[in-house]
This record gives sequence, structure tokens and C-alpha cells, in this order.
Amino acid sequence: MTLEQEIHTIGRRAREASRALARLSATQKNKILIAMADELIVRSLEILAANAEDIAAAEKNGLTNAAIDRLRLTPDRISGMADGIRQVAALEDPVGEILRDWTRPNGIRIQKIRTPIGVIGIIYESRPNVTADAAVLCLKTGNAVILRGGSEALASNLAIAKALQAGGFEAGLPDFSVQLIPTKDREAVKIMAAMDQFMDVIIPRGGHSLIEAVVNAARMPVIKHYDGICHVYVDREADLQMALDIAINAKCQRPGVCNAVETLLIHRDIAQEFLRLATPVMDAARVELVADPESFKILASLHYNSLREADDATWRTEWLDLILSVRIVDDLAAAIDHIETFGSHHSDAIITRNPATAESFLASVDSATVYWNASTRFTDGGEFGFGAEIGISTDKLHARGPMGLEELTTYKYLIRGDGQIRK
Amino acid sequence: MTLEQEIHTIGRRAREASRALARLSATQKNKILIAMADELIVRSLEILAANAEDIAAAEKNGLTNAAIDRLRLTPDRISGMADGIRQVAALEDPVGEILRDWTRPNGIRIQKIRTPIGVIGIIYESRPNVTADAAVLCLKTGNAVILRGGSEALASNLAIAKALQAGGFEAGLPDFSVQLIPTKDREAVKIMAAMDQFMDVIIPRGGHSLIEAVVNAARMPVIKHYDGICHVYVDREADLQMALDIAINAKCQRPGVCNAVETLLIHRDIAQEFLRLATPVMDAARVELVADPESFKILASLHYNSLREADDATWRTEWLDLILSVRIVDDLAAAIDHIETFGSHHSDAIITRNPATAESFLASVDSATVYWNASTRFTDGGEFGFGAEIGISTDKLHARGPMGLEELTTYKYLIRGDGQIRK
Repeated sequence: MTLEQEIHTIGRRAREASRALARLSATQKNKILIAMADELIVRSLEILAANAEDIAAAEKNGLTNAAIDRLRLTPDRISGMADGIRQVAALEDPVGEILRDWTRPNGIRIQKIRTPIGVIGIIYESRPNVTADAAVLCLKTGNAVILRGGSEALASNLAIAKALQAGGFEAGLPDFSVQLIPTKDREAVKIMAAMDQFMDVIIPRGGHSLIEAVVNAARMPVIKHYDGICHVYVDREADLQMALDIAINAKCQRPGVCNAVETLLIHRDIAQEFLRLATPVMDAARVELVADPESFKILASLHYNSLREADDATWRTEWLDLILSVRIVDDLAAAIDHIETFGSHHSDAIITRNPATAESFLASVDSATVYWNASTRFTDGGEFGFGAEIGISTDKLHARGPMGLEELTTYKYLIRGDGQIRK
Repeated sequence: MTLEQEIHTIGRRAREASRALARLSATQKNKILIAMADELIVRSLEILAANAEDIAAAEKNGLTNAAIDRLRLTPDRISGMADGIRQVAALEDPVGEILRDWTRPNGIRIQKIRTPIGVIGIIYESRPNVTADAAVLCLKTGNAVILRGGSEALASNLAIAKALQAGGFEAGLPDFSVQLIPTKDREAVKIMAAMDQFMDVIIPRGGHSLIEAVVNAARMPVIKHYDGICHVYVDREADLQMALDIAINAKCQRPGVCNAVETLLIHRDIAQEFLRLATPVMDAARVELVADPESFKILASLHYNSLREADDATWRTEWLDLILSVRIVDDLAAAIDHIETFGSHHSDAIITRNPATAESFLASVDSATVYWNASTRFTDGGEFGFGAEIGISTDKLHARGPMGLEELTTYKYLIRGDGQIRK
């Protein structure tokens, strides 16, 4: 069997499973989820043994400590996965919700009803816990899932998938509802991305090059999770202490994530005063500042320690680290223009006391989430109250911003008549 | 300037225009639409002259009469376009609608608000009226549009686009809101489909090979308008006269469209009786039947005139003509299985008096629109009461089934706080 035949077989089986899955009730699905969580715990030792293989190979291959840490499972992490599954089981099932219900003058009644999408492909990198997280969100919404994790985590992922399948099977999970691509061959991603006869959507979660590879090969819709080049704009009428608290939180609370701020825009009129207030705190937080000429001058005069000059690439850089780009702007319009030009339309905030200025910013900035006087770090399914999150979409179609369960569904129209024909 | 530079310039200008468009009020947009409609009438002679050029070239190039008819504009067709624009102006503007509004325990208030998508690319074939239809639906929803029509209609399309631009300009339409690709070069489609930095979505409307070309080249979401291989299933407990009326309507009322029925599935228990009732009417309507062995036998015994045997390709064929595939099935499950295997998930109907059978069909058939006792011909934005339609999506993501104004929008989240930071 060629690799293509193998992947297509997985696709065909997922398509078949999706039909059975769509007929499961919420109660049945939840029972399956609980059984999966239980089986993860039962098979902890097996999973840890598989993980030890991956870790040994990673060490042999000279992966960084950070990469090895992402890969590592512990009893705590496994019970974290199981708890996550139980939380998903407790969420409301969005499938079957009537989104609209109306009757036309000719008497046909039209219902727009929420349904599973069908078959979802998820491609991700190192962390093995994504195997469980992604699978259960798809299952909760009645979708079959085809998973493709990082090659360095293959043994761990296979062990986790096996536990989910075994636990689910006992509780009535249709065969082939959760499948993992069992090869490290990179060609598999291309084959997956092209098989639109079997897969309805593909969600790549990972670095830029992974997403690019999927976008280039995909024949089906891709829900991209691209960079977050997020901004905080400190307006002339900002509460400067609030602005500083938010900037520090958005940069430092977890610098390596997509909703962390990368660029601070400051209105010229308050730049001197704000930077004087900010520098001791930024310094204490060990933030390196990459400044445009004007703010560089001020920061240098304040003897800021960790400082360098911005260049052409600065404004398009997602630092994912304790580094912050700083630019002074003339006014609100210049701030918006900067964000629209250099941003990634992910999460952007304005800090101001002036409601009219704030509303203008909210209306003009074309990003998934736009904030007034709050940290960009709230762009998150959990913080939004979605209960679970498959990721943060940087796409505009189907799903934008935090993707919860609803974003893993589509709809169809049910039309009931008594013999109506079109005139 | 290379073709790529030319198309990218169009893209960049559309992106700029989209920012200005997003700020227009519903009143401003409607004023622009009315001015466009007026200008189409004012420039009727110019448009007709351009159309005459296209027609002359088409005749010289030996296009079929049907193709030339699709291409032809008349004063009536132009006033039809203008009336269509006025109708769109009268529709409610979906942009700005608050889709959800909630406050989190930490006090941040989150609003999910409907917004324009940004820049929409529409690729279509012969009919020049699509230039006006598509442009105004995008404009109504605050989107910039890049149009690429059939090469045989280029002069007509340019004249229509010019009228829309001139009329709109007087009423405050931002420059480059409506642009038409001014070349017949097929390479232009590929360049459009790849420029995801400037275009948010691409909608191909046309034949299978056009859609395939776009899907293969596209780096942005594609909303496909593929084939409609639609079914009517006549259940054992159907009102046979109703079933016949619906089958005839779904096949004959307009055979060349995507929501026309292509395959009739008949429960074995009533097949003989139903076909006896149906054949005189089918014959009078000049419908050719392409039958599976079992129905072939019955139809032959009834001396049906225009009859041939089905082959392997039959069930996947979109006839778009007065031809109907016929197959006898064992039961509901076999009917659903046939539809799921061979259908295009567009529009499928069951005719039955039994509500349980109907509900099972409605739940199990994974199509954009699923009917009980009504004609598949109702899958249409107008018939659904959407007021206007950009097409019928055969995709599952973002838009499924008839696409009205709402489907030309996306959303963003506005978050208002008073200094909240993430703990």
C-alpha cells in the first residue's frame, strides 16, 4: 500500500465514521468522553513508557531543553488531559441547536439547524496533549478527526490515541472516529491537505512554515492560526498607570503566546511622561525595548538599559519573548494606520479615558478582537467563557478569534412542506 | 508593468478601499446603490454598444446560440439590473448587528459584532449582469470587490463596471471599491487566487473546470458553487400524486439549474404503481429516463418512449437537462446511502406521509438543504426570503446553501474594560 493509499483509507474510514457520529446524542457522546478520560488514566504507564521513547530519541537528536519540555508527559500532565476531557463532557452540546426557524408565505417551514462539520483534520507540533484536546473537541461536536502530530512525539501520540480509541470503543464510539496518521513522513501532510473528498476542513496549529505548507497544498478550507502581532496604543487621554499595567500584563504575563503584545504605540503628547513612568517597571520586568528614533531618544535620555533601534523588520516581528517594539505616533489615525499596516489582525487595544476616541478605534481596527482598556491576553476561549478552545483563528471566514465548540460546527436547512412546488 | 504587478495593484487598492467602505453608514451605502442604478440607465446606450462588440466577436468565434443569448444585453435586461440594485438598496444592512453581548465575571464586556469581510473576489462566466449583481451585494455589505468575468463578455462588463463606478463616485463611493480585471488573460485568475495579502475570499461561479482551477491555485478561502446532484426519494408511504408533482417540478421547471433534481429514488413497494402513474406525465414533459435494471424493466413494460439503461457514471451525473436518473431502492436506509454516496450534498427531498421516516431522512442526509414534501427548487436566496443571493454554496464552512447578505459578512469581538489584566 502506498502512503497515499494508506492516508486515503484513513480518510474514507473517517468519512464513514462521521455519518455514525452525527447520529449520536449528547448523552452518548458524553459517556464516550468520560470513558476516554478514564482509559487515559488506566493506561498512564503505557503512555509514559511511549513518551520515554520519544524523549530518549529527542535527547539523542539534540533537541533543545524547551522542546524536550514541551514533549514531556508526567502523571500530572496525563491527569490534566483527563480532567480536560471531563470538562468538555460537561459543556453544552451545540449540535442540534435551531439557529433560525421561519415559515414562507407559500407555507414551507425552514429551519436552520446546527450540525457537525463532518471530518476535521488537525495538524500540530510537539505537545502530545493536543492529541487528546483536539480529539475530544471534535468528538463532542460529532465530528470525526484525523490527527497528525509532531514526528518527535509519534510514540506518545499513538499511545494517547490508542487509549482514547479503547476507552471510547467500550462506550459506543464508532470505529475510526479518532485516527492518528501513524507515520513521520512529511508527505502525509500534503496528501491530507489535498483529500477534500474525505476531509471538510484542515486546522494547522503550529509555526509559520507548517501553516504555509498546509495553505499551499490544501484543496479544502484551512482555518489558520497565524502570528499574533498585537498592539497596545496609549492614547493622549489614557490613564497612564492603567496603560502601563496593561502593557506589562500583555507583554510579560506569558510572552510566548499569540495574544501577547509585540508593539506599543504611544501618543506623542504623553510619550515623555508615559515612558518616564514605564521605564522602571519595564526594567524590573527585564523587557528589552526596540524603539523608533523618537522614542529611542527619550529612552536613551532616561538611561533605559536594554534598548536598541527599530529597523524595517521590527514592526512585523512577533517577538514571542520579553522584547517590545515601541513607536511614537501623531494621533489616533496614525495608530490605526500602523496597526492596519503592520498588524496581524489578531488582538489590539487602546487605552484611553475618552469614549469617542475608544469607539473610533473599536470601529476602525479590523482585528478579531479589539480592546478598550483591557489586556490583549483575554483573547482566549477560556477567558471568553467558551469552556474549551481549539485555537485562535486569524482567518476571517467561518471562525475568527477564539474557536470554541460552536466553531467546530456548521449548519444545514431542513424544509418541511405539504407538497409545495415552485411556480 | 507585468500582469502580476497590475493585478496586485488592483488588490492593494481594493484593500485600501475596503477600509473606507467599512466606515460607511447604511444610508450612505444605499444612496450609492441608487446612484449606481440610475447611472446604469443613463449609460444604457454605451453598455449596449459595448455588448454589441462582444456579441459580434462571439458570433465570429462560433459560440452557440445559447451562449450568445446568455451574453446578450437588451434595454429590458439593463433595467432589470437597475431594478435589482434598487431592491438590494431596500434590504436591511446586516453590518453592525450585535450577534452576542455578554459580560465576564472580571467585568470585561464582550460584543460579537457583524462586520464586512474586507475584499471579495468573484470569478464568473458569461452573463454580464453578474457584474452588477455581485458588485452591489458586496457593496451593500461594505466589502470591496474584484470582479473577473468571462472573457467573451469583457467589453460589456467593463461598460457596466464603469457605469457603477461613475454613479457611485458621485454619491461618495470610495475609489477602487468596485474593480474589474481588465484582461482576458487566464493567468489573471491564478494571480488573483494567490494574493491572500489583498483578498479575503474568492467565490468562483461557473463550471467545474473554472472552480477546479481556482481551488488548486487559491491561498485564501474559496466558497465553491459546485454541481447540484439533487435527489427526490419517493417513500413507500408517499402520496404518489404529490411525489409526481414534486418530481416533475424539480426536474422540469428549470432543468438547467443546480437545484433541479437529477435522480429519482423509488421505494420498491410502490415502484410499479408510481411509475404507472408517472410515465404519461413524464412523457408529456419529454423527460428522458435513465433507469437501473429494475426500473428499466418496469418502464419498458409500460412502453416508456425515451428510455435508456443507467451505467456507472449515471448516478454522479448532473444532467442539467430534461433527463432523469431512476433507481429503485429497498428502503429508507438504501435511499440515504445512495444520496450520501453519489449526491453532491446540495438539495435532497423525501416524499412521505410518515413523519418518523421523514425526520430520519432530514437528520441523516448531510446536505445544505433537506426537504420533506417539497420541491428541491426552493433552494434559492429569493425563495428563502433572503432578498438577494450571491449563489448557492456547496461548501460547509462559513456559508452553506443559499448565500445572502449575511454570508458576505464576518464578525469581530469588541471588548470593553476598565483596566482588566489577566491573572
